[in-house]
Amino acid sequence: MAAKSRFVLQRLFNGLRTQSLWLQSSKSTSSQGRPSSLSFRTHTCGELRSDHVGDKVTLCGWVQYLRQDLFVILRDFTGLTQILIPQEESASGLKSALCDLTVESVIQVTGTVRLRPSGQENKGMPTGEIEVLAENVEIFNICQKLPFEIKDFVKKSESLRMQYRYLDLRSSQMQQNLRLRSQVVMKMRDYLCNVQGFVDVETPTLFKRTPGGAKEFVVPSREPGMFYSLPQSPQQFKQLLMVAGVDRYFQIARCYRDEGSKPDRQPEFTQVDIEMSFVEQAGIMSLVEGLLQHSWPPEKGPIKVPFHTMKYEEAMRDYGVDKPDTRFNMKLIDLSEVFSASDVEFLRSALSKPGGTVQAICVPGGANLFTGKTLDELKQAAKTQFGQRPLLGHLRLQSAQLLESSGVTLRDPSAFHFLWVVDFPLFLPKEDKPEELESAHHPFTAPLPEDSQLLYTEPHKVRGQHYDLVLNGSEIGGGSIRIHKAAEQHHVLKNILKEDTTLLSHLLEALDSGAPPHGGIALGLDRLISIMVGANSIRDVIAFPKSFRGHDLMSRAPDSLSEEELNAYHISVKWPTKHERCEEDERK
Amino acid sequence: MAAKSRFVLQRLFNGLRTQSLWLQSSKSTSSQGRPSSLSFRTHTCGELRSDHVGDKVTLCGWVQYLRQDLFVILRDFTGLTQILIPQEESASGLKSALCDLTVESVIQVTGTVRLRPSGQENKGMPTGEIEVLAENVEIFNICQKLPFEIKDFVKKSESLRMQYRYLDLRSSQMQQNLRLRSQVVMKMRDYLCNVQGFVDVETPTLFKRTPGGAKEFVVPSREPGMFYSLPQSPQQFKQLLMVAGVDRYFQIARCYRDEGSKPDRQPEFTQVDIEMSFVEQAGIMSLVEGLLQHSWPPEKGPIKVPFHTMKYEEAMRDYGVDKPDTRFNMKLIDLSEVFSASDVEFLRSALSKPGGTVQAICVPGGANLFTGKTLDELKQAAKTQFGQRPLLGHLRLQSAQLLESSGVTLRDPSAFHFLWVVDFPLFLPKEDKPEELESAHHPFTAPLPEDSQLLYTEPHKVRGQHYDLVLNGSEIGGGSIRIHKAAEQHHVLKNILKEDTTLLSHLLEALDSGAPPHGGIALGLDRLISIMVGANSIRDVIAFPKSFRGHDLMSRAPDSLSEEELNAYHISVKWPTKHERCEEDERK
Repeated sequence: MAAKSRFVLQRLFNGLRTQSLWLQSSKSTSSQGRPSSLSFRTHTCGELRSDHVGDKVTLCGWVQYLRQDLFVILRDFTGLTQILIPQEESASGLKSALCDLTVESVIQVTGTVRLRPSGQENKGMPTGEIEVLAENVEIFNICQKLPFEIKDFVKKSESLRMQYRYLDLRSSQMQQNLRLRSQVVMKMRDYLCNVQGFVDVETPTLFKRTPGGAKEFVVPSREPGMFYSLPQSPQQFKQLLMVAGVDRYFQIARCYRDEGSKPDRQPEFTQVDIEMSFVEQAGIMSLVEGLLQHSWPPEKGPIKVPFHTMKYEEAMRDYGVDKPDTRFNMKLIDLSEVFSASDVEFLRSALSKPGGTVQAICVPGGANLFTGKTLDELKQAAKTQFGQRPLLGHLRLQSAQLLESSGVTLRDPSAFHFLWVVDFPLFLPKEDKPEELESAHHPFTAPLPEDSQLLYTEPHKVRGQHYDLVLNGSEIGGGSIRIHKAAEQHHVLKNILKEDTTLLSHLLEALDSGAPPHGGIALGLDRLISIMVGANSIRDVIAFPKSFRGHDLMSRAPDSLSEEELNAYHISVKWPTKHERCEEDERK
Repeated sequence: MAAKSRFVLQRLFNGLRTQSLWLQSSKSTSSQGRPSSLSFRTHTCGELRSDHVGDKVTLCGWVQYLRQDLFVILRDFTGLTQILIPQEESASGLKSALCDLTVESVIQVTGTVRLRPSGQENKGMPTGEIEVLAENVEIFNICQKLPFEIKDFVKKSESLRMQYRYLDLRSSQMQQNLRLRSQVVMKMRDYLCNVQGFVDVETPTLFKRTPGGAKEFVVPSREPGMFYSLPQSPQQFKQLLMVAGVDRYFQIARCYRDEGSKPDRQPEFTQVDIEMSFVEQAGIMSLVEGLLQHSWPPEKGPIKVPFHTMKYEEAMRDYGVDKPDTRFNMKLIDLSEVFSASDVEFLRSALSKPGGTVQAICVPGGANLFTGKTLDELKQAAKTQFGQRPLLGHLRLQSAQLLESSGVTLRDPSAFHFLWVVDFPLFLPKEDKPEELESAHHPFTAPLPEDSQLLYTEPHKVRGQHYDLVLNGSEIGGGSIRIHKAAEQHHVLKNILKEDTTLLSHLLEALDSGAPPHGGIALGLDRLISIMVGANSIRDVIAFPKSFRGHDLMSRAPDSLSEEELNAYHISVKWPTKHERCEEDERK
């Protein structure tokens, strides 16, 4: 083989960006398990080094790259190995078998590990010191035409990625995301089970509809007119498990939420669901801090506990939102007093309203950077959201994004700012009927002990023992100490929330049968992992996510069913009239 | 306090059977975690010993037992502690608070650990050397009237247990079952993730209906006429993950199966779902043996690997069933030759049929033990099941049960006999149309390599690379090496099974895009744990099971929905006519 052409090809290959990405992933998986046991291979594609020179090895994997008649680059989940195609006449059968391969075909190669010729090592590749001289090949599957190349740098449309998810998942980034998720969850379980004595209990997903459960999918049973519901969380079960004396429960729980046509929501998602007996708010918060510290990937840097805590009131006052991004300052400044005697009509009008304020955000460098179109965007946002509660919080975030897109360094992308937000109001006025109250979170949250008498006199003033966990401005968890007395729970449901208590009679009965004080939390696993890996969307940390509109583009779900299939469930489709269709389209 | 009355009470209490059961459970949990961290208590009710004498402790729990004005026996998930009620006049408030408690009320007690008076220790109780002299009590919840006592020896009807499941779960047996299940699953994950390098990947449950998926629940979407299905297993996803290069996947997966009115089935159940690339049948079998050995509870005794392997043909010949209970002998004996020249008409007629045989089971001692009613039962079973394939297998088991109920020791209840059954036929004639074939397991199973050409000539003769795992005569798992070539899969689906291949076009496309050879298995977790703990039903190892008819008796699910709720999903109930109702009732 001509040393020169070999050198040129080597350089060409070295230039591929895929390589450096595979390098990262091979690092994080190499310490895991024994991936070659029980399998056809003797080694993985990421593990051969100069120590292996002279060894006869068997590798299995995908053809990542194939160059003329010289090299096959073989890939598995741990990395890449260069296979040298023998050039002797006596190996012509082997040579032509290898040279006929298409990219992404699946093969098994047996050969001998040798050092690459001096000067042709690739320091950027973990296996770059060696190559494997092929002696035998078994071709498992020839890859037919692909809809896109399996290269991280090849941009694909989101819908193409979803349609061919099994190819999209071959990218090093998606492999890393799925593997990191698995490892984090494993460490969480280790902490909860082995360190803190929690019991992993599975709870049903075919359940009864819950009061106000408008977002619950329904599942027809074979009894005419009778339906299960897929619950949004195991809330009732976790509380019942505390009544049952389980003491410490957790579950990595599949949850369902039907948000109809709301975009970018997953109809099914996963939460780390936790409940404890004989505990106060501080105990749950310490537990979660310990949990995250224990399971945090070392390569993401250590996280400091305890996390900062902020009262809801303070969050709303300083950040205009209940989930502040504390990676940057730019707090809201109340200027109401300054303008208390103002003559400007719209300021006077704002201040004269109940709770009306005038507030400012100081954007450093904004005077220079925010001009023309940028300024118009901000004004437009202010106009359309005027009078809505989180307006200033949105403007603060929008300003930060505008600053960053102008090149200002504001938020460190590798920083993780955890924050507890506490002392939420227990009830809020209903949006459509402000004279009635609804739960700020859910009806099972206990009031702060010092506010509990207000439940019977001024419920709108009651603060709840609720805590939200915020990471970089995203809510990643929420929980509360629950009401454990039947009479108090009954009062909240019936007198304050005006709910039909018969739907929850089993829970009320349970509270009267020896319920311990208890509380818990649920962490949104998809969101947490997506922030951890810096993904743009939770779809990048879910193996088979649904599209924006809740479709599985690969299998084309949801799908139509035959009348016979529907008959078994005693349902029929009620096709909307043309008029109803138009109305629905308008609402979207 | 009169020493004598105290002694009498102590004896009374010692007699309760609950105690010995709690003793067992406290043993298995005491090594787990730190159950008192983060909590109100300083210790659990099961951990105090004479070493703690003089310590001031705080315990939380349920009032298990209360006797006159002397003792409160406090229970938590670890065991029981005797609380001594102070008798001094100065403690009258505390005394009356404790004496007014009802059984199953929840309290917190602070007091000092002291030795019990000499001669009054209880050696059968782990905390029987000590008692805690109460100094302070906080009453969290007074238990109102209970539907049944929380004592293991109190028999409750199954429906009462289900309706008040949160009380039923307080029994020591159910606590043990749930905690053992959690620990076994944790060790399984440890083995798969940390020892064998598997990746825990969550797959969706809202999916598209699968061919022949008549047992799949349907979930209406908000698009008129479009439905998701809840799949019976992640079969397609696990194979797609292999195509995606995940290499080793596992999931403790929730699965759904709608068997309508078939009794004693759970509509949702859990399987340990495993798939591997570049592996043969022997590799999966070794993996599962290692998995079970690693996760087997030490107190159940060690299990020996490798497990025995038996061919399907041999199982059918010797045991008359494909999941033989090998804990006892009593194999079937073929007597066809003996009777080949028989004059007895029914024997001649049996032998003249294709595949007709005359077989016997030798029941040791049967001649003496099987008389009158017993013999009639056997005859009746033989008559009603005559001509059905597993008749002799059933008779063998029935004979074993009859022997055991006559007091013969046949099967060791603490023995665990694992068995692999292999070389199943790939296809079986359809029950209703014997001239057509259906998959013996599922359409993705690969043929034995030596039989693969028969797929195109005599498919009914093909044996599959399928393996079932049997434990004590119950099938607890099944798996196979899968077809990884699109053309072969297409042939099986289209030409042999006559399925609509468009429903699986995504899978066929995936096989053409670089699919590795792969295989896997699914273990039925509920069944496995129920055999492990010796439960009568899988309902005893599931926290909130459904009733025989698929109902949740606690919450009363499934339930009716309002027309408004159904309108959102564009469905309406098709009430059956009176005639249809009668027909359905007859089928049940």
